[in-house]
Amino acid sequence: MIDMVNKSYKTAACIGGGVIGGGWVARFLLHGWDVNVYDPAADAQRKLDAVLDNARAALPQLADVAMPREGKLILCDSLEAAVANADWIQESVPERLDIKHAVFAQVQAACLDSAIIGSSTSGFKPSQLQENALNPQQIMVAHPFNPVYLLPLVELVPSPINNPEIIEQAKTLLTSIGMKPLHVRKEIDAHIADRLLEAVWREGLWMIKDGIATTSEIDDAIRYGFGLRWAQMGLFETYRIAGGEEGMAHFISQFGPCLQWPWTKLMDVPELTDELIKQIANQSDTQSGHKSIRELERLRDNNLIAILRSLKNENTAAGALINKHEQTIKPELPSEYKEPITTISRVIPNDWTDYNGHMNESRYGQIFSDAADIVMKTVGANEAYIASGLSYFTVDIAIKFLAETHAGSHIHVKSYILLGEGKKMRLFHQMFGDDDTLMATGEQMLIHVSLETRRACEPRKDVLANLERIATAHSKFEDPRGKRQ
Amino acid sequence: MIDMVNKSYKTAACIGGGVIGGGWVARFLLHGWDVNVYDPAADAQRKLDAVLDNARAALPQLADVAMPREGKLILCDSLEAAVANADWIQESVPERLDIKHAVFAQVQAACLDSAIIGSSTSGFKPSQLQENALNPQQIMVAHPFNPVYLLPLVELVPSPINNPEIIEQAKTLLTSIGMKPLHVRKEIDAHIADRLLEAVWREGLWMIKDGIATTSEIDDAIRYGFGLRWAQMGLFETYRIAGGEEGMAHFISQFGPCLQWPWTKLMDVPELTDELIKQIANQSDTQSGHKSIRELERLRDNNLIAILRSLKNENTAAGALINKHEQTIKPELPSEYKEPITTISRVIPNDWTDYNGHMNESRYGQIFSDAADIVMKTVGANEAYIASGLSYFTVDIAIKFLAETHAGSHIHVKSYILLGEGKKMRLFHQMFGDDDTLMATGEQMLIHVSLETRRACEPRKDVLANLERIATAHSKFEDPRGKRQ
Repeated sequence: MIDMVNKSYKTAACIGGGVIGGGWVARFLLHGWDVNVYDPAADAQRKLDAVLDNARAALPQLADVAMPREGKLILCDSLEAAVANADWIQESVPERLDIKHAVFAQVQAACLDSAIIGSSTSGFKPSQLQENALNPQQIMVAHPFNPVYLLPLVELVPSPINNPEIIEQAKTLLTSIGMKPLHVRKEIDAHIADRLLEAVWREGLWMIKDGIATTSEIDDAIRYGFGLRWAQMGLFETYRIAGGEEGMAHFISQFGPCLQWPWTKLMDVPELTDELIKQIANQSDTQSGHKSIRELERLRDNNLIAILRSLKNENTAAGALINKHEQTIKPELPSEYKEPITTISRVIPNDWTDYNGHMNESRYGQIFSDAADIVMKTVGANEAYIASGLSYFTVDIAIKFLAETHAGSHIHVKSYILLGEGKKMRLFHQMFGDDDTLMATGEQMLIHVSLETRRACEPRKDVLANLERIATAHSKFEDPRGKRQ
Repeated sequence: MIDMVNKSYKTAACIGGGVIGGGWVARFLLHGWDVNVYDPAADAQRKLDAVLDNARAALPQLADVAMPREGKLILCDSLEAAVANADWIQESVPERLDIKHAVFAQVQAACLDSAIIGSSTSGFKPSQLQENALNPQQIMVAHPFNPVYLLPLVELVPSPINNPEIIEQAKTLLTSIGMKPLHVRKEIDAHIADRLLEAVWREGLWMIKDGIATTSEIDDAIRYGFGLRWAQMGLFETYRIAGGEEGMAHFISQFGPCLQWPWTKLMDVPELTDELIKQIANQSDTQSGHKSIRELERLRDNNLIAILRSLKNENTAAGALINKHEQTIKPELPSEYKEPITTISRVIPNDWTDYNGHMNESRYGQIFSDAADIVMKTVGANEAYIASGLSYFTVDIAIKFLAETHAGSHIHVKSYILLGEGKKMRLFHQMFGDDDTLMATGEQMLIHVSLETRRACEPRKDVLANLERIATAHSKFEDPRGKRQ
């Protein structure tokens, strides 16, 4: 189906199939390109398969649409065979200039004139790579980041020899496989990102050497703090916000003097002239000046909420911390059943809203699913019970949507056990807004299952007894389905 | 309700209510603490309100449970009144040692002996803060990160004067307000995180000064690349993975020589002795050695998927890039109606699975909601139509769950228009696995609405005509509700 929409898939040749080369193979292949690989290593196939396994498991999950059909992968016996019909040739061989020069000579003797040759080098400048080449204009740096199949950044570094057309062509092509080509306008050792990484790496090494911090402490200093900021805004936009209403120039002149302090081991510091301050402030205005500080703050906060919530869902890093903390502020389960169970009391997060500006309808289902979890815990089908191999699965649910709700609104849910006998549990949930407006109802049928056989089975005796006791208590209430529907 | 579970909420005093001080106020307050603020600035209330507005909008969205009831906020006329009954006193005044010393003298003349005094300083060492203090043992660095109400990291830096009990007490207390106290074991100018930030900042300034990159390009180099890695793993765990199966020591000795290259302006580099390599490798083993490289890769990839998908949902940073890219690989809408509309074809992402190990039931609702979007587009109720102020809202949906599905599985959905007349559209969706197993069905009633009045109204003529035409075509099919249910 996709092939008819976009016939532009081409052929890539990847020279070197290690972690980086294999990552390129995966990115091209899963975006529909045919890929020829040349890697003389004895275990090339095994290494490549390992990367491809990861990539095939990961990349399609990123998409909310079907990915293109995977291209054709060929492990070639010779470099010449790999590059002969390739539109893009990616070199990912070891970081030695003599090796790279030899590879380029061999490639250019066999490849199409129209092909682009990208180098994964993290250290060499394009003009160094181009030295003595048959056709230097064909060669550029295209430096990706691990894992290449997931991270979008690729530093595209031409030398003055490359003409604007081939640079544009390279950008278009890298964009078409889902990447973010960052055109590095002036070649420099290590390009841009690795200079920053190198600076952090050196500082980290000093801290370890001086016994200040361990690798684990340094990692925590990053991933619970500024790492979360940097996943969405970089250094300068973050500091623009820190400058607050007084702006970037104010921030720099305030923070500037600190540069003279003995904070790092590495003290060769550019002089903060008025000219440099103005240059930075102007660039920051160009980058972010169309948004007020207040807007930037909200954007940052929304992004942080979304990122932190995604990590919560994985129960990892800062997300695991928040989950653990939630255990400490979570209300206890209700112990009396004189009224329906208040299963949910929470605020609607921004990642639950959709293009209509309100909470997406599927999240009503999520709230009722969460409510059913609390009912399960209330009857004793808790985490330990699930760990023992027993649980409830939902068979069907009917949801009525009565009112809209939005991010930041507080809602609560009352849940009734309509039926609780044997393997069956039928629930009825009512979701209310803060002013007790009924916003939605859900009638949900669950069956008790063995997680081993994935088939229906009787609950454990104590759970069944609890279920029956509460269901009997709830049967005394007026039928909630008769009300306000 | 919460108060009964946990009676331990206390009183904090915040001295200084700017961006950082106000962030502390918000974090304490929204975790149920009473907070006394002392800030002599004329616009203290306004600045504090601005931070509190942001925090109240953001922090509760992070939680999947109800937050504690907000504590009582008092703006005090004197520092003495603010600190008198406080259990924790947080100093966030300007970064001048003489000012901080004066504040500590005033605080300690009025506060409880049992109180802990935390300083938000990013530059001073605790022993400097403690100089000439009445009770030096009471003072520590508690350095947070902006926005304080969302980012968990706080660097807790005692001097040798602070006893282990007060350090433990401080850690417990900071943990109770959702923070990650990083105990900095050896005091050092700028602690840990700001040394790393400082290194990047200097390198960034050089690149701007030398005309290599703009603020915007540097930010892109971060947020499309390593920033995404650092939101979940830090520097060393990431590099451990890069080292691959051969491990951390291999990675360092491979990457080590690069330290001698002229990559940064800042060249005072620790010598990579065997001892230092061993030290780093050992620390990395302690940190991550319980997981294989393959496990770490999967963990990293799952986290990256979750983070990138959260940014997609916000349509920002790397997420906006992926959304834009998806537009280029999205199949065209079907133009023939000889069979039900194939509305969805996609892979199940890992952030859709739950503790039962399968796709959470609410995501079936999301898939059918997404399917309804495609039906809407097919009848002409597309993005432009919605932007014009018209849309469809779901009134009710009944979902039957027939089979489990898991992350990485490919599914597709066929959608029927059962009814399409006037304001009404009734859909029936069938979700299939790759082997055409029917996994779920959804019968969904939508009504056409004005997004201005939020009330039902007739669709635009062309949309209604399309709807009726396709509904008529679909009425020729066998009723899908009769089948396999």
